[in-house]
Amino acid sequence: MTQTAAIIGGGVIGGGWLARFLLNGWNVNLYDPDTQAERKIAAVLENARHALPMLYDVTLPKEGKLKICSTIQEAVTDTSWIQESVPERLDLKHKVFSEIVATAPKDAIIGSSTSGFKPSELQQGLSSPASVLVAHPFNPVYLLPLVELVPSSANPVLVLDRAKQILTSLGMFPLHVRKEIDAHIADRFLEAVWREGLWLIKDGIATTQEIDDAIRYGFGLRWAQMGLFETYRIAGGEEGMAHFIEQFGPCLQWPWTKLMDVPELTDELIVQIADQSNVQSGDKSIRDLERLRDNNLIALLRALKGQDTAAGALINAHEANIKPALPEIIEEPLMTIKRVIPIDWTDYNGHMNESRYGQVFSDAADIVMQTVGANADYIRSGLSYFTVDIQIKFLAETHAGSSIHVKSFVLQGEGKKMRLFHQMFLDNGTLMASGEQMLIHVSLETRRACEPRADVLEKLEMVAAIHAKLPDPRGV
Amino acid sequence: MTQTAAIIGGGVIGGGWLARFLLNGWNVNLYDPDTQAERKIAAVLENARHALPMLYDVTLPKEGKLKICSTIQEAVTDTSWIQESVPERLDLKHKVFSEIVATAPKDAIIGSSTSGFKPSELQQGLSSPASVLVAHPFNPVYLLPLVELVPSSANPVLVLDRAKQILTSLGMFPLHVRKEIDAHIADRFLEAVWREGLWLIKDGIATTQEIDDAIRYGFGLRWAQMGLFETYRIAGGEEGMAHFIEQFGPCLQWPWTKLMDVPELTDELIVQIADQSNVQSGDKSIRDLERLRDNNLIALLRALKGQDTAAGALINAHEANIKPALPEIIEEPLMTIKRVIPIDWTDYNGHMNESRYGQVFSDAADIVMQTVGANADYIRSGLSYFTVDIQIKFLAETHAGSSIHVKSFVLQGEGKKMRLFHQMFLDNGTLMASGEQMLIHVSLETRRACEPRADVLEKLEMVAAIHAKLPDPRGV
Repeated sequence: MTQTAAIIGGGVIGGGWLARFLLNGWNVNLYDPDTQAERKIAAVLENARHALPMLYDVTLPKEGKLKICSTIQEAVTDTSWIQESVPERLDLKHKVFSEIVATAPKDAIIGSSTSGFKPSELQQGLSSPASVLVAHPFNPVYLLPLVELVPSSANPVLVLDRAKQILTSLGMFPLHVRKEIDAHIADRFLEAVWREGLWLIKDGIATTQEIDDAIRYGFGLRWAQMGLFETYRIAGGEEGMAHFIEQFGPCLQWPWTKLMDVPELTDELIVQIADQSNVQSGDKSIRDLERLRDNNLIALLRALKGQDTAAGALINAHEANIKPALPEIIEEPLMTIKRVIPIDWTDYNGHMNESRYGQVFSDAADIVMQTVGANADYIRSGLSYFTVDIQIKFLAETHAGSSIHVKSFVLQGEGKKMRLFHQMFLDNGTLMASGEQMLIHVSLETRRACEPRADVLEKLEMVAAIHAKLPDPRGV
Repeated sequence: MTQTAAIIGGGVIGGGWLARFLLNGWNVNLYDPDTQAERKIAAVLENARHALPMLYDVTLPKEGKLKICSTIQEAVTDTSWIQESVPERLDLKHKVFSEIVATAPKDAIIGSSTSGFKPSELQQGLSSPASVLVAHPFNPVYLLPLVELVPSSANPVLVLDRAKQILTSLGMFPLHVRKEIDAHIADRFLEAVWREGLWLIKDGIATTQEIDDAIRYGFGLRWAQMGLFETYRIAGGEEGMAHFIEQFGPCLQWPWTKLMDVPELTDELIVQIADQSNVQSGDKSIRDLERLRDNNLIALLRALKGQDTAAGALINAHEANIKPALPEIIEEPLMTIKRVIPIDWTDYNGHMNESRYGQVFSDAADIVMQTVGANADYIRSGLSYFTVDIQIKFLAETHAGSSIHVKSFVLQGEGKKMRLFHQMFLDNGTLMASGEQMLIHVSLETRRACEPRADVLEKLEMVAAIHAKLPDPRGV
């Protein structure tokens, strides 16, 4: 049966929760006295509907129904999860929680999005606090998996387990914070960084832009896949975590941050950290961890490269500088592609996914186009070639890290038609795949076929004439 | 002409620099008195040779030559860049720099990898300090672009400019730190986070694993693409950055971190931050920034999904729970795929890359295989189908966010052969592409063709017989 969640308090966080539930097939009851709430929720929901379905390679469950409620009582009726996201004032939260608890179903989980308050603070004065705990998410709530789940001693284990189960079913990661503390875990780091950042700006050391660049081009990339400690375990190298701590221990006494109230680095603390790190990283050697980190970083950096943003834009700029010249037109097939097969082109089994042969040949066709003058300027002028069909023969398995090259033949180049034949080789000469591809010249305005510009057609015909004298490669 | 870099001090950081130069076509002279240096360098270089070439869609320049030198003097001869990465002891660094400066070419840049020392400290007592500055990289140096470039007043602008130009040519991002400060910029944050982390462990709040999860499933993902301030600019919502700071300002007085020496949040400081943030984010509205952030996060999360690690492993686990049942075998084509086209499948122009049609059809073939019993267990038993050729017809352009489905026909299912025909439709019924695909049954051990298991062949023949009664879809 479809379950129902109540969202108490819209805004960016409440709206994010609402979207997360709705897009995972839950019905949602919204209560928010703000007259702008519906408009704000609609904006978050539009973002979420754009984003979350793209995350998966299967479809999400059918979206649930959204109901706008005019009282808390109406909103919490027949719900399995109630999420409070009202402003960070304890008196206000107390008022909202006593209203919720008065009418909520007995077995509904009541989560608070609070960034800072402890669950025992929220539970103060409640007649039945057992179902109230902290479920602190991260913006954008519909995309980021982390939820800090913080119980107090008033919460039975069953409540915690049910909360974990529900959050997991929404694609989230419930991090059980075992001991109550102001600001839980993640926000303690965010707050420390925020305070340090304010100092850097106040002291004129760095601007917001410079600080953001210092994060997103460096350790931010590391932290997207491993956190702080596993990253440092690797940095400790062969000598391990305890060595790393001892080596960097003295810095704790140095004024490397304005935040100087530091714990004493006792032997006991060092052993505690090293032991926890051993449990965390299990049997993986430093070499294993290095390889894992590097593969993750390549995948992340190439993901940003595909979007041409952040560190990916830097890689594209560098690539433009080291891009080889266009192939020479001689009495040989065009040498269109020379590259290495990246880790993100392979399946779990380490073989190149069959679709990526099509990528290689599509990239090869781009180079042929540029060679005959149908380059970026030409495309900007509103003309291009579109592939209408391709036939790919798969001859051998290709692996990540392999160096490959592609030879391209112009089989036909007349009027609107360009027929190409590509052969992909390992650099040792093994033929791995071939592709016969038909492209049609189009106007990007009308999206219909049209004649190429005269100089492009002339050059294409010239290459086709040269290649016609070569043996037909399709016989190979 | 090939340029030469000198690496003074191997280890993880020196080795990373060495790899970055070498793989970008520079010759490298290494000086390190450690008898283990060559072995350690070889390990870093092996990682770098695996990783860096995969980052690009073109080949890197031809690798330079590595020369092991027995003196600093020999190493720095005829170099354009000299990088010091010896242990963090100022006396040792002074000794190394005076040796370097004595024999280095006049126009060579002399960079220090120091995490903490200011350039003016490094320059103390040098006869010619003009070329000595801090160039602080981040591990792994061969992959992460950030280098903090910190000059003192002793460095002419020309030296700084040349340093920036060289680092950029290596694919790095030189962040000019305009004012000397202990630990520069990034390490101030890292140190603050490290100190907070030590407290959390010491106080028994969290383990190394829990801290790492709190980072990599939440804000770590945000920081891989935007940093701290642009992320918070978005969190401020329509009311902007000044609103965000005012709202979260009071937390500065709360014990949300152990690190309590905080700057006073004056109106002046708020305006300064808001102004810098306006310059940084330019004309982009909050909605623009939200969309940019979400697209980046989808690309990053899907990159990790492809590697089945970190947050990507969570998504795969969730996906396994919401995966639809296998298609029913009825007198209709198999409904193999229902999905949304994700942002990382599109070219810059927003159209689905032509190779991704192949991906959709390859995924459809997987579902056909599972439907006839050639599922994960079957593959684990050492049997599978490999695609030998595919012919794809492209009928219309597909965009990110489009909901599509695929109908698959078994045209032939006999012996080792399985011939499929797939049609990809928009959910409104428009036919976007079709693919005719020939697969051969193989033994994963011998990698050669072999007969399918009897039950699989029987089911395949049954589906083929049912589909044989349908009109031939290739006529459409």
